[in-house]
Amino acid sequence: MTTTHIDSPVHILTEDSPDQPTPTAELSALYRGFEKELLVPLWTEIGDLMPAHPQSKATPYVWRWDSLLPLAEEAGRIVPVGRGGERRAIALANPSLGGKPFVSPTLWAAIQYLLPGEDAPEHRHTQHAFRFVVEGEGVWTVVGRDPVAMGRGDFLPQAGWNWHAHHNATDKPMAWIDGLDIPFQYGNETQFFEFGREVISDQERITPARSRSERLWAHPGLTPVGVSAAGAGTPLLAYRWEHTDGALTDQLELESEGFPGVVEPGHAVVRFTNPSTGGDVLPTIRTEMHRVRRGAETAVRREVGSSVYQVFDGSGVVSVGSHEWTVTRGDLFVVPSWQPYSVRSEAGSTDSDSGALDLFRFSDTPIFEALQQNRVQVEGTHS
Amino acid sequence: MTTTHIDSPVHILTEDSPDQPTPTAELSALYRGFEKELLVPLWTEIGDLMPAHPQSKATPYVWRWDSLLPLAEEAGRIVPVGRGGERRAIALANPSLGGKPFVSPTLWAAIQYLLPGEDAPEHRHTQHAFRFVVEGEGVWTVVGRDPVAMGRGDFLPQAGWNWHAHHNATDKPMAWIDGLDIPFQYGNETQFFEFGREVISDQERITPARSRSERLWAHPGLTPVGVSAAGAGTPLLAYRWEHTDGALTDQLELESEGFPGVVEPGHAVVRFTNPSTGGDVLPTIRTEMHRVRRGAETAVRREVGSSVYQVFDGSGVVSVGSHEWTVTRGDLFVVPSWQPYSVRSEAGSTDSDSGALDLFRFSDTPIFEALQQNRVQVEGTHS
Amino acid sequence: MTTTHIDSPVHILTEDSPDQPTPTAELSALYRGFEKELLVPLWTEIGDLMPAHPQSKATPYVWRWDSLLPLAEEAGRIVPVGRGGERRAIALANPSLGGKPFVSPTLWAAIQYLLPGEDAPEHRHTQHAFRFVVEGEGVWTVVGRDPVAMGRGDFLPQAGWNWHAHHNATDKPMAWIDGLDIPFQYGNETQFFEFGREVISDQERITPARSRSERLWAHPGLTPVGVSAAGAGTPLLAYRWEHTDGALTDQLELESEGFPGVVEPGHAVVRFTNPSTGGDVLPTIRTEMHRVRRGAETAVRREVGSSVYQVFDGSGVVSVGSHEWTVTRGDLFVVPSWQPYSVRSEAGSTDSDSGALDLFRFSDTPIFEALQQNRVQVEGTHS
Amino acid sequence: MTTTHIDSPVHILTEDSPDQPTPTAELSALYRGFEKELLVPLWTEIGDLMPAHPQSKATPYVWRWDSLLPLAEEAGRIVPVGRGGERRAIALANPSLGGKPFVSPTLWAAIQYLLPGEDAPEHRHTQHAFRFVVEGEGVWTVVGRDPVAMGRGDFLPQAGWNWHAHHNATDKPMAWIDGLDIPFQYGNETQFFEFGREVISDQERITPARSRSERLWAHPGLTPVGVSAAGAGTPLLAYRWEHTDGALTDQLELESEGFPGVVEPGHAVVRFTNPSTGGDVLPTIRTEMHRVRRGAETAVRREVGSSVYQVFDGSGVVSVGSHEWTVTRGDLFVVPSWQPYSVRSEAGSTDSDSGALDLFRFSDTPIFEALQQNRVQVEGTHS
Repeated sequence: MTTTHIDSPVHILTEDSPDQPTPTAELSALYRGFEKELLVPLWTEIGDLMPAHPQSKATPYVWRWDSLLPLAEEAGRIVPVGRGGERRAIALANPSLGGKPFVSPTLWAAIQYLLPGEDAPEHRHTQHAFRFVVEGEGVWTVVGRDPVAMGRGDFLPQAGWNWHAHHNATDKPMAWIDGLDIPFQYGNETQFFEFGREVISDQERITPARSRSERLWAHPGLTPVGVSAAGAGTPLLAYRWEHTDGALTDQLELESEGFPGVVEPGHAVVRFTNPSTGGDVLPTIRTEMHRVRRGAETAVRREVGSSVYQVFDGSGVVSVGSHEWTVTRGDLFVVPSWQPYSVRSEAGSTDSDSGALDLFRFSDTPIFEALQQNRVQVEGTHS
Repeated sequence: MTTTHIDSPVHILTEDSPDQPTPTAELSALYRGFEKELLVPLWTEIGDLMPAHPQSKATPYVWRWDSLLPLAEEAGRIVPVGRGGERRAIALANPSLGGKPFVSPTLWAAIQYLLPGEDAPEHRHTQHAFRFVVEGEGVWTVVGRDPVAMGRGDFLPQAGWNWHAHHNATDKPMAWIDGLDIPFQYGNETQFFEFGREVISDQERITPARSRSERLWAHPGLTPVGVSAAGAGTPLLAYRWEHTDGALTDQLELESEGFPGVVEPGHAVVRFTNPSTGGDVLPTIRTEMHRVRRGAETAVRREVGSSVYQVFDGSGVVSVGSHEWTVTRGDLFVVPSWQPYSVRSEAGSTDSDSGALDLFRFSDTPIFEALQQNRVQVEGTHS
Repeated sequence: MTTTHIDSPVHILTEDSPDQPTPTAELSALYRGFEKELLVPLWTEIGDLMPAHPQSKATPYVWRWDSLLPLAEEAGRIVPVGRGGERRAIALANPSLGGKPFVSPTLWAAIQYLLPGEDAPEHRHTQHAFRFVVEGEGVWTVVGRDPVAMGRGDFLPQAGWNWHAHHNATDKPMAWIDGLDIPFQYGNETQFFEFGREVISDQERITPARSRSERLWAHPGLTPVGVSAAGAGTPLLAYRWEHTDGALTDQLELESEGFPGVVEPGHAVVRFTNPSTGGDVLPTIRTEMHRVRRGAETAVRREVGSSVYQVFDGSGVVSVGSHEWTVTRGDLFVVPSWQPYSVRSEAGSTDSDSGALDLFRFSDTPIFEALQQNRVQVEGTHS
Repeated sequence: MTTTHIDSPVHILTEDSPDQPTPTAELSALYRGFEKELLVPLWTEIGDLMPAHPQSKATPYVWRWDSLLPLAEEAGRIVPVGRGGERRAIALANPSLGGKPFVSPTLWAAIQYLLPGEDAPEHRHTQHAFRFVVEGEGVWTVVGRDPVAMGRGDFLPQAGWNWHAHHNATDKPMAWIDGLDIPFQYGNETQFFEFGREVISDQERITPARSRSERLWAHPGLTPVGVSAAGAGTPLLAYRWEHTDGALTDQLELESEGFPGVVEPGHAVVRFTNPSTGGDVLPTIRTEMHRVRRGAETAVRREVGSSVYQVFDGSGVVSVGSHEWTVTRGDLFVVPSWQPYSVRSEAGSTDSDSGALDLFRFSDTPIFEALQQNRVQVEGTHS
C-alpha cells in the first residue's frame, strides 16, 4: 500500500479521474497548508476512493495443495505448537495486499497442521472461525469443552468468543483449512483475545463420533427446547459430509426429474446455516458447498465482497477476471470483490473418474447483507 | 354462550366482582337507555372481561382413542368423502364451548379417516394445519403437488394457502390427527378458502418414501440455495419419527451423562421448527414432542393460551386443573389457558413395557409470542 | 351465538355449502355417537368455519354522539366511579355479537366520563388501550406516575401492564373515547389484571401541559439515549392534535404542489407510531387519522379484520357493505372484516364550513400483520 | 502501513507476543518457502493480528476550526468546484493512517465549502453520508430533487445511492462538515458511484425553509401512510437544531426535577434516528448530540470502533488515551477504537458565557451492532 504524497497526487488518478486544478504556486502552497494541518482534499483522491464499481486491491490467485501440504509438513517437523504461537497455521497472503497474511481484504485462510499426540492450546477470540477438512481425520476440536471429530468433508464452525483447543488423538498427522475474519476485524479494530487453560481435561480427550452439539442440534427441523442457542453464531459445531453430500445429490436428482432445487443447470448449492435462525453460521462469514456436474459451467457472476474456494473433489477450470486456472483437489483460490467469476467442471489430466466438481466456498457476504451493501450481478443481468 | 341481559347483569359477577350501583328506578332507566342505544357499561362486565388471570371458557377434557377410532371407522363406512364436505374429519368439541367443534378457543383437533383408494379433494385455505400420525400408514398428503408419505410418529405441517389433497394408496384404511387454527381464524374472521382441481394428476399419485420437500430441506443445518422458503410457514413438509425419536433419545442420554439438554429431570422436549427461520413451523401453532422417563413427573406449569396433547406411546397420569386422568396411546386431552398442568409417566394397566411416555403437543403459543402476550409460570416461580 | 345441534346441522349451511350425506337411521346413530363423545364432523360445519372469504358475525353499525353523550352525562349523575367498577365507561355493543360489549369481534370502544374532581382509580391490565378526545379537556391520565393532559384531538396510547389512573383537575366534566383489545384478549384468554394504589400522590396531581414522556420522546427523529423504550408499546404517551393536524395539512399541500404524500387523491393519512420502532403504537391496535378533502371520495377497500372510526371534524357519507350513513362530529361506526368500505366528504345539513372530513380510525391490523394473515383489496384490484 | 518481511518478523512482536521458534538455517529455509508460495505463518503475526484488545492504528488527534476554515476559504479562492472533483471537500487525515484521508479506519470527516452561486454537481454513491453545520447558512442540499436548507445546528443525513447536489443560493460562502463511511467501504470494496445530471432544474433551486422530507416525516410519532420509507437509511433529510436543542434542554430539566432522562449526571444525549424504524439514520454511521453541563465530567468510556466529535458550542477539556486537549467551537477530534475517552465541560479562555458544552458525535457503531461485535466498557465496569 503506497503512501499518498499530496503534493503530487496525480499518481492515483485513473483514466476516469477528473481533471485537476491547474498547478500553480498558490495551489502548491495550499497543498502544503493541507499537509501541515493533516488534511487531504477529496478532488485528488476521488478516483481511488469512489470508483464507479469496486476495484479490489486484492489479486485473483490460486494456491496449490501440492505446494501447501509439504510446507505444512515441514513446519510440523521444525516448528513446535504451543502457548504464544497458539496454532501451527500458515496463511495465504494475497500477492497485492502488502505481505499481510490476508487472502482478501476481509478474509483469512490458512492450512493448519497437527502431529500425533499434539495439542493446540485453549484460547478464545472475537474473530469468527471455521475449519474445513479436505483430507484426513484424527483431530478433535474441543469447543466449549465439547470434543468434535474432524474428518474429510466435515465443516466445523466456531463463532467468536468460544473457548477452543485441538488435539490429535491418533498416530497420524492431520491438516485442515481454517477460515476466519481476521482481516476484517483487524481493519475495523474489534479484536479481543484471551488465553484459556494450559491443559484440557481428560474428559475432553474422549473421542466420540458425535459431539454433544450434534446430539442436540443436528436433527433436521428439530429444536431442543431445554438449551439455549444464545450467542453470535450457530450452536451446531459440525456439519458432516454425509449430510452435505446427500443434500447435493438430492438437488441434482431433483433437477434430473424436472423439479426445482439447483441454482442453475448442473449446479447444486447448499449453505451451511444456523439451525436456530436459518441464517448464516457466523455473523461475518458465509459458507457453502457447490457441486457442478461434469461438463457443466456456471454463469459469470460478480458480487460485492470476496470469496475463497477450495476444491473438495473433481477438477475444473476456473475463470476470475482475466485469470484462468485448472484446479484439482485441495487447491484454493480467491475471488476479489466484483471480479467476474465462473467455473467449468471437467476431468483433470490425472483424473479418470466421472464425478462432479465439488467446491467449498466461504465469503464475507453476511457483512454486506447486514449493512445493506450487498450486490450481485449475473451475466448480462443488471444488479 | 349465554346472552347478556344488561338489566340484570348480576349473573356475571363473580366473588371478585365489584359492588354494583344501588338498583333504583333511574338506574334501570339508564340501563334501558343503554340497551336501546346498543351500549353496555363496563362496571357490570368487568369481572368477566378483565379477570385477575385468564379464566378459560374451555374445560379440561380427555377424548379416548378407543372411542374415537370406531366412530371414525363407522363414518368411513357410511359417509362419503368428496367435494363439498372435503374431508372425513371429526373434530373434538370442548364441552363448554357451546357445541362448536373447537377443542379450545383457538384450536381445532380432529381425527381424519381415509379408505383404501379414496381421495380427499384438493383445496386451500388460510387456516394453518398439520397432521400427526399415532398409528398406521398408507396415505400420501399432496402439498403443492409434492406427495408426502405419512407413517407412525410422522409430523406433517402445512401452512395456510398451500394447495393440498390426500390419497390412500394402499389397501388399508388410515386414520390420523389434524390440527388447525380454525377457531382462532373463525373468531378473528380472517378465513379464505378455494377449491382446487377435482382430480390430482397421476404424477402426484407416486408414492415416494421421501417428499421433494424433504430432499431439499431435511438435511440438518443445510439450506438449499436454489429454492426459496417464502411463505408463512415451514418449507419442510414432513418431520420423520426416526429423527424425532433420535433427538429425544439423545437428550435423555446427555442427561444421564451429566450434560444439558432436557428441560427438567427426566423430561426431554423437541420443537418442530422451520429450518429457514429456526422458529415455529406455523405462524399460529407450536408443535412439540415430549418424552417423560418412566417414573418421572413434570413440574406444574401454567401458560397463557391452550394446548392439546396426544399420547404417542407409553402411559401416565395427567393433571389439569382439578382434573386427573390416566392416559394411554392415542388419547387426546386439552389444557385450557392458565390451567395448572403436569404429567407423571407410569405403566398403564395393560402396559407391560418399561418405556417412557411420549406426548405430542400443539398449542397457540406463537400467536401470543408474536403479540407479546405470552406468560408462563412454573411451580412456585413467578411469571 | 346459537348452539349447534349436530343432528340437524342444515341450519348452518349456506348456498355454498356442500350436499350432506343422505339422512338415514345409521347416519343419525353416527351423529348421536359423535354427540355423546363430544365430537362434531367437519362436513356439516365447513360452510360456516371455512368460508370463501371472511363473513363477519358483526354488523356494520353507527352510534351517534348525540345519543352517547347524554347517556354518559346521565351515568355521571347516578353511577359513582371507584374501585371495583373502576371506570365510568360505556361500551358500544355490536348488534349481532350476542349482547357482548364488543364493537367488533376483536375491539372494544367506549365513551368514558369523569366529573370535576373525580378520580378513576389506579390499576393495570394486559389489555392494550388508548384514549382519543373528540371534545373537551381537563382530565389528566396518569400512566406510570406521569400525568398526561388530554385535550381535543389528542391521542393517548397506553400499552398493556402499565399502571394508570385518571383525574379531572378542572371544574367541568369531560368525556372521551377508550379503545382496547378486550374482545381479542377475552376470546384468546390472555388477560391479567391488578389493582393499584387506592389514591394517587399529590405529585401526580400536577397538571403540566407536557408529560414527561413527551419531553423525552416527542422530538421528531430524536431518541433519548439515557432511557429505555422497553415494553410492548410506545413510550410516547401523547400525540398532540397540533402535530397531527400539521402532518395532514402538509400532505394535502404536497398533493396540491404535485408531490407524493397522500394515499389517494384528496385523502391524507397519518399513522400513530412508536418512535422507538416506527411500528404501531400498540401490539394489537393500529391507530390513524384520516383527512378527506371536501368533495373527495375514497376508493372502496376490504380488509381482513375490523376497524372503528370516529368523526373528529366535518361531515360525510359512509358506505359499509350495504349500509350507508351520513355522519358528523363524534359519530362512531364499525367496519367488520372484509366488508367493503368507502367514505365521501361533504357538508352536513347543519355544517356550513368548507372544511375537510377528519376521521380517527383504529383497527386490529397489527395482529394480522404479525401473524401474516393480513389482506387488503382495493376496488377492482386483487389481493 | 509497513510491509511485512517474513524472514525477520520480529519487528511486529510486542511485549505480549510469543517466543518465536529458534532461528536456524532450516527455519529460514521454511520461511523462504512460505514467501515463495505467498504464505505467512500465524505464529509470527499473532501479536499484531489478535491482540488482547483493540490496538488502534489510528492516533487520537484534534483539528482546530481556526486552522481548517481559512484553508477552506483559500481553497474556495483557487480551486473550482465541478464535475470530476465533484466537491470542494477537504478531509481530516489521521496522522498514523499512512497519509490516507481517513480520520479513523472506518470514517471520513471533511470540511466542505461552497461560494455564493456555486453548485456542486449531482451524483450518487453507495457511501452513506451526512452534513452537520457548525456555523452559517445559505446552502440547500438537493437530495432526490428535494431541496433541504442547511443552517447552524442542523443535521442532514443522506443514505447511500441517493442522488444529491448542493447549491449556494445566497451571497455568502458557507462551510460545513461532511461525514461518510468512505474508509469502511474502501477497505471492504463495496463502492459504486454514478454521475447525475450536469445541471439541476429550476424547480430544485427553490429555497423552502422546510424540505418535503420534513413535511412528510418530521411530525413526532406520526408516519405518513401514503409514502414508503424503503431504502437503506432514514427518509427524514433534516433534523433541525430547534428540535435537538429542545430535546437536550428537556433532558437536563427532567434531571433537575429528579426524573430519568440523562445518560449520567449532567450529560444529556439524543441520537438522530430513522423515524420509520427507530434505529440509526444510516446503516453504518451513528450520530448523536451530547450536552454536558458546565462543570460536569463524563465517565471514562471505551468502545469498539471509532468516533469523531465536533464541538458545537461551549468549551471543555477532552481526554483520549494519553492525550488531553482544550477544545472550543468547531474543533474536531477523533477517538480511536477502545481508547479511553472522557470530557469535562468548562469555560474556555475566551468564553465568558455560562453555557454547556454541546458536542456533535458520529461513530461506526451500527456496523458492530449489526455484526454483534460491539463492546462498551464504562469506568471500572466490565464489558
